[in-house]
Amino acid sequence: MTSFAEIITIGDEILYGQTLDTNSHWLSSALDEAGIQVTRKTSIADKREEILEMVREAETRADIILLTGGLGPTNDDLTKPTLVEYFDTKLVHHPEVLTHIQNIFVKAGREMSELNMKQADLPENCTPIHNAFGTAPGMWFEKNGKVIISMPGVPFEMKKMMTDEIIPKLVKQFANGVIYHKIIRTVGVPESKLAQEINGWENNLPKDIRLAYLPTMGMVKLRLTAKGADSNLIEKKVSEEVEKVMPLIEKYVFGFDEDELEVVLGKLLLEKGKKLALAESCTGGYLSHMVTSVPGSSQWFNGSFIPYSNQLKNEQLDVSNETLKAHGAVSEPVVLAMAENVRKKLHADVAVAVSGIAGPGGGSEEKPVGTVWIGYADETKSTAKVFHFTKDRTINIKYSAIAALNMIRVNLNKD
Amino acid sequence: MTSFAEIITIGDEILYGQTLDTNSHWLSSALDEAGIQVTRKTSIADKREEILEMVREAETRADIILLTGGLGPTNDDLTKPTLVEYFDTKLVHHPEVLTHIQNIFVKAGREMSELNMKQADLPENCTPIHNAFGTAPGMWFEKNGKVIISMPGVPFEMKKMMTDEIIPKLVKQFANGVIYHKIIRTVGVPESKLAQEINGWENNLPKDIRLAYLPTMGMVKLRLTAKGADSNLIEKKVSEEVEKVMPLIEKYVFGFDEDELEVVLGKLLLEKGKKLALAESCTGGYLSHMVTSVPGSSQWFNGSFIPYSNQLKNEQLDVSNETLKAHGAVSEPVVLAMAENVRKKLHADVAVAVSGIAGPGGGSEEKPVGTVWIGYADETKSTAKVFHFTKDRTINIKYSAIAALNMIRVNLNKD
Repeated sequence: MTSFAEIITIGDEILYGQTLDTNSHWLSSALDEAGIQVTRKTSIADKREEILEMVREAETRADIILLTGGLGPTNDDLTKPTLVEYFDTKLVHHPEVLTHIQNIFVKAGREMSELNMKQADLPENCTPIHNAFGTAPGMWFEKNGKVIISMPGVPFEMKKMMTDEIIPKLVKQFANGVIYHKIIRTVGVPESKLAQEINGWENNLPKDIRLAYLPTMGMVKLRLTAKGADSNLIEKKVSEEVEKVMPLIEKYVFGFDEDELEVVLGKLLLEKGKKLALAESCTGGYLSHMVTSVPGSSQWFNGSFIPYSNQLKNEQLDVSNETLKAHGAVSEPVVLAMAENVRKKLHADVAVAVSGIAGPGGGSEEKPVGTVWIGYADETKSTAKVFHFTKDRTINIKYSAIAALNMIRVNLNKD
Repeated sequence: MTSFAEIITIGDEILYGQTLDTNSHWLSSALDEAGIQVTRKTSIADKREEILEMVREAETRADIILLTGGLGPTNDDLTKPTLVEYFDTKLVHHPEVLTHIQNIFVKAGREMSELNMKQADLPENCTPIHNAFGTAPGMWFEKNGKVIISMPGVPFEMKKMMTDEIIPKLVKQFANGVIYHKIIRTVGVPESKLAQEINGWENNLPKDIRLAYLPTMGMVKLRLTAKGADSNLIEKKVSEEVEKVMPLIEKYVFGFDEDELEVVLGKLLLEKGKKLALAESCTGGYLSHMVTSVPGSSQWFNGSFIPYSNQLKNEQLDVSNETLKAHGAVSEPVVLAMAENVRKKLHADVAVAVSGIAGPGGGSEEKPVGTVWIGYADETKSTAKVFHFTKDRTINIKYSAIAALNMIRVNLNKD
């Protein structure tokens, strides 16, 4: 039997659009991995009546209800008193929780306030959940076989609590049927082109396997989903379909499931014993950030230059002033020179360079906003390609970085 | 009279945690600005029954219902057929929409598929909404004085559609009372310390003004919210409270409302006619990315070095090998040398350098994961500070970047 969960995030700031709700995203993924199906996610205001109504509603639909937010020490945090009312109970003091809160303040060398002390008072019918990274404990309630869990809204506190305490307890308590997902990750091909190329295969998919196209920035994920009682059986069925579709799309596929392009690339470079260097103009550090967000990237990444001005392109990367003048900074010869020279200067085997017009300013008739040149260089060759993205600065930066990573991938796979 | 809106995002990928729902965040903020109050946001599966139930439910509560997602050309997109069923209507062909779709394909030099052609067929009772950036038109339905709007899930298509078509129409149709928010943005002070410092003021706030603490990565926003009929009156009332609290927290405040730290910093540098350069080790480009995400940053930002290896710290930024050996790359003398030398090499007036142990590897007893040194240099002085952040790589990178930006702010304000 599959167990169903609802996620409720509490906070006016989410409804007013002042805070991006990343918690419910992370929670969905963590529950999905644990075999618990999230059926609904709701964000509501930090108001007594809203919280009461929402929990009551969710209880009629789901087995597990997870609440985040509204547990801070300040007076605008209403979740705890409202749950006391909902369960018709009272607060009791937990000395072990107080000791933990005190330790946090001692370690941080900060003084504890009255408000923080009250965080050790919890509803009588709940089991406290340890908050390793913060002062607001989580609360685990049970009622008619259903579980209601309240957690702080601070992302890293909530995540630690889920991973160490809540998920193991949920998995134990709810014996689940299985949902199985397989994700095929592609880059450098638009959704509709991909759909056309796999159309014949898609039409012949077994009825109990669902296919979804998930386009993100410059990439499309294909997700196959199957449900059943026997996990081996459904896994096998999905694997057979993956084997059938792969020959049709092999050149676009860089990984599966949670594989990130930059992580895959790192592994590829490490395998080949090659080091990477980058020169970024319009991406302004975003490409380097993607690369260095990979733990252990220092094993295959030497470093970057971000010569934002033409003067620095000339001084630091030996792009001649004549070339800059004749072709402009956003041009094939400039990104080729940048890639070749950053490769040598930073003692790398492989390098890419990006120069473009991210916008909103700087566009012209000939080179409108969204025009981006990307150069690639390794020991034996160098090559460059022009892209035409959008009018949006943020999107152009991200598309350019993905295209640059893909250019490295394609060229490394050629060797 | 205030109008209430609910946002419904449709997509299995959101429930499974494979896609972060940024649409509802952006929509909340756009509606809030337009004086429309978002009372609930829900994410549901891409399933016929779920969509039907959800729209039915939301209709009992809200005046305006906004749906995103499920409008793609592929077969897993169910929103359009489900709305046809909900309104008990049929599809009719819109030649002007087809022309628009064809134009998009011609411009992109791509071939149009059968699936894309069907995107020009829309429910008979809807008014099509122009999708300037994509092939899936939006749909505007009206029923018993309520408005139901369906939009594509692709963020930049949805945003363009909202900004140009939907918001103006909504504002015209719903005469609203006013919600007024004022946000005070602080950096470099923890939530509980801030709460203590403004405790007296907070307790004396008028009853119709609500205060919320919104902590994000290294920053805390204070949001004051008031509601009323007369926008001038409530604005004045909130302004008076802001004037009272400011003297208590002035040194932490970098801006108001939508002010971003990096934008404020850019203005400050531009005002003072100063240029910035950066040297990043553990932040690996994220700090430069924050800076260059500001349109027009080339006016006050020269460029960066990201010397990820010790060899490059030595070769590119003249950090002596003796210093690196004696103190390690994460140390006061190293970040001071990096800041001073990147300032000179990149012809800047002001520079910061970051070197730390982002994790998960690389920590030691003496310098655990989360230890970060930040150095600052300008024409007259240089200074450095050590920070102790968390065990999480991503969080450490972001905290470090914020702390580095704040160090520039504090030092520029001293002059």
